Amino acid sequence: MKKVLLREDEMPKSWYNVLPDLPQPLDPPLDPETKKPVKPEQLELIFAKECVEQEMSDKRFIEIPEELRKVYSLWRPTPLVRATNLEEAIGTKAKIFYKNESVSPPGSHKPNTAVAQAYYCKKEGVKKLVTETGAGQWGSALSFAGAQFGMEVKVYMVKVSYEQKPYRKFLMESWGGKCYPSPTDMTQIGKKIRDEFPNTTGSLGIAISEAVEDAATHSDTKYAIGSVANHVLMHQTIVGLEVEAQLKKIGVKPTIMIGCVGGGSNFGGFMLPFFPKKLEGEKIRFIAAEPKACPTFTKGRFRYDYGDTGKVTPLFKMYTLGSSFVPPAIHAGGLRYHGDSPILSLLIKLGLLEAQAYHQREVFEAGVLFARTEGILPAPETNHAIKAVIEEAKKASEDDVIVFNFSGHGHFDLAAYDAYFRGSLEDYEYPEEEIEKAMQSLPEI
Amino acid sequence: MKKVLLREDEMPKSWYNVLPDLPQPLDPPLDPETKKPVKPEQLELIFAKECVEQEMSDKRFIEIPEELRKVYSLWRPTPLVRATNLEEAIGTKAKIFYKNESVSPPGSHKPNTAVAQAYYCKKEGVKKLVTETGAGQWGSALSFAGAQFGMEVKVYMVKVSYEQKPYRKFLMESWGGKCYPSPTDMTQIGKKIRDEFPNTTGSLGIAISEAVEDAATHSDTKYAIGSVANHVLMHQTIVGLEVEAQLKKIGVKPTIMIGCVGGGSNFGGFMLPFFPKKLEGEKIRFIAAEPKACPTFTKGRFRYDYGDTGKVTPLFKMYTLGSSFVPPAIHAGGLRYHGDSPILSLLIKLGLLEAQAYHQREVFEAGVLFARTEGILPAPETNHAIKAVIEEAKKASEDDVIVFNFSGHGHFDLAAYDAYFRGSLEDYEYPEEEIEKAMQSLPEI
Repeated sequence: MKKVLLREDEMPKSWYNVLPDLPQPLDPPLDPETKKPVKPEQLELIFAKECVEQEMSDKRFIEIPEELRKVYSLWRPTPLVRATNLEEAIGTKAKIFYKNESVSPPGSHKPNTAVAQAYYCKKEGVKKLVTETGAGQWGSALSFAGAQFGMEVKVYMVKVSYEQKPYRKFLMESWGGKCYPSPTDMTQIGKKIRDEFPNTTGSLGIAISEAVEDAATHSDTKYAIGSVANHVLMHQTIVGLEVEAQLKKIGVKPTIMIGCVGGGSNFGGFMLPFFPKKLEGEKIRFIAAEPKACPTFTKGRFRYDYGDTGKVTPLFKMYTLGSSFVPPAIHAGGLRYHGDSPILSLLIKLGLLEAQAYHQREVFEAGVLFARTEGILPAPETNHAIKAVIEEAKKASEDDVIVFNFSGHGHFDLAAYDAYFRGSLEDYEYPEEEIEKAMQSLPEI
Repeated sequence: MKKVLLREDEMPKSWYNVLPDLPQPLDPPLDPETKKPVKPEQLELIFAKECVEQEMSDKRFIEIPEELRKVYSLWRPTPLVRATNLEEAIGTKAKIFYKNESVSPPGSHKPNTAVAQAYYCKKEGVKKLVTETGAGQWGSALSFAGAQFGMEVKVYMVKVSYEQKPYRKFLMESWGGKCYPSPTDMTQIGKKIRDEFPNTTGSLGIAISEAVEDAATHSDTKYAIGSVANHVLMHQTIVGLEVEAQLKKIGVKPTIMIGCVGGGSNFGGFMLPFFPKKLEGEKIRFIAAEPKACPTFTKGRFRYDYGDTGKVTPLFKMYTLGSSFVPPAIHAGGLRYHGDSPILSLLIKLGLLEAQAYHQREVFEAGVLFARTEGILPAPETNHAIKAVIEEAKKASEDDVIVFNFSGHGHFDLAAYDAYFRGSLEDYEYPEEEIEKAMQSLPEI
């Protein structure tokens, strides 16, 4: 059997919340002004109440509402696939499996949380969802979610991406989402930045500031977040819970679990349901794959930092390159956020997760091998995970079972593949000095 | 349950060949010079021997080789999905199901025959596959198939598409396919056309002539065909056979089966396995949806015509607009071939199939409704089927079960969606006079 499938009635009925199982509590998010722990009421200004509760919940399992499971069933459960052709091409002794999250309508794991956040907002009477998007994956997923619940969606898209990647905008529009190049003149912070830097091409940090301001200043509007936050990782655990059920069906236990990490939601959602097994002593390694151009886990520091450029979000205790981080334009992949999920950051700090950084050319080489063996063209982000899988598979023994999260397809990233084939992708390593410099401007907490 | 799934061991083990079940035999393909029936040896110059045998076989079922079923299992069996959200949006009394062929790596039904043709060629010692492609769907599918069997793939892509749709070329390259703007200087016919018309933007008819010449003049090379031919429709019957098994699982019988038609392979593969039921008296309608800009079934004539512009292919008895047909540039969808599958043409002639033609704006409107309800963004070709489904669903009774083939996704067609949203898609009806004129230049047979 190439694929391990679950029936719809085998889809998990609850998400898994890792918070009560963490070896030590997370440091709380802090108010950017007072540096005191943020109160739930503050977060409820921009997020759905239910999501704020989930963000801090101590319940190990949280039920997935029936109506939401119906939306999930548009594409879930997703297949777990044995990568036999890839195994053969590498000549590994290990078994390799991948969880195929690219089968969702927007083509990635992102809708797992997008539809959940839209659902709770809708239930609480919200009319409009706002968010930011860099490359466009998250903006598409939220537009799709908005269409499912009949809600307006407004996306602040980093200007340079908006101009370079018009297809993502068209995709959002197909689902009814409205997409604007950020900075816009629709927010105070956007106007301020346009006044000061008329030629700015925007950044993810600026777009986040705009979206958060939009939500905070409109009572019918909430902000939806694509990664990093605890409740986002929790929504994504439907991925790992399905993997657990699928591996159980074929009587196999994973020894190595791999995913790419930007903000951490696909990897977190994939591996967290297996985390208690590691605590119980099961021999299992978790490996996060990231770009050398944005080496948050491998080179960043575990510090309190802002989530955005405008410093309007809370401060989070996380691995960070500094919120002033600007990814180099020569880098094609996603995974370009300066920080990382506080949950995964803590696990890295405690030595319970490993991290590996790769150059983009070797990562695309891995992706092309995957496409030519297993068929599906991976997203550049996913290529990082595949590169890590290949490296581990070469060293693995016949007792090893490598499972990775195939987070998304590359149908909207063909220009990056073309650049790779033409030889115009450049490898770039984010300089140590820049990280040191950025650390000095972080608040002392 | 939203989806009806089959296990891998429930995948059909044979294709269905309709030839022995046709109410009357097909008129044979004719040699373009002598106008005598083509001999198998002539076809074997350009096609795999096994495919030529299948083209004329009187066996009702032909076994799918084990090795090929392994390749199919990369994405097959594909889901049959109840379009509950679409039903609700239309307010129909009928049940609507769609067979989701967009889950294949190249995103359409095309690889069902691409991998089969590649398999037989490989087995017969062929090193290289050549073909033509218009919009790029077929070229991508064959490139994917070539990668699976370690074969070189060379694609002659209509020059205007090559220039307007660079992403399709990048996709082919990702699987290792080589793609050239046709007319090229690599064939005699290409050179001749470039000499005579230095500014030509190419056409599907020219690209076919180039690919066929390439295969005929290189002993290590065969031509692979994406639609129209009997063996192509037969390979596609895996779609309809799966639908049959899936509907049986839930105890439902179709009353209306719908698909879009260009050359006829997705619709043929989908409905032909149900054709014997109609002959046996079951109440079932088959509806082919086509563009008004290329109204082969609804306005064309049932005549012997060439398959290409260069008149190097055999003459086929089929509905045709004339091989000189050039689709208008304002038309975004595929489905632009002048002719149609001889099998489906005969069934239309005998009144056993119905056909409906639609304008492209109404067709995109239907596709956007589908994307906003069922989630997946359809290919422009598939939008024609969806439009027909919506029209039928409005008139349907609660006893009706409408099943359609969701032939492909629109991830590589976002520019067409953008044109639709901007209002720059134009409706166009192919003029009757042009058809009349073209008919006069057809050979009298």
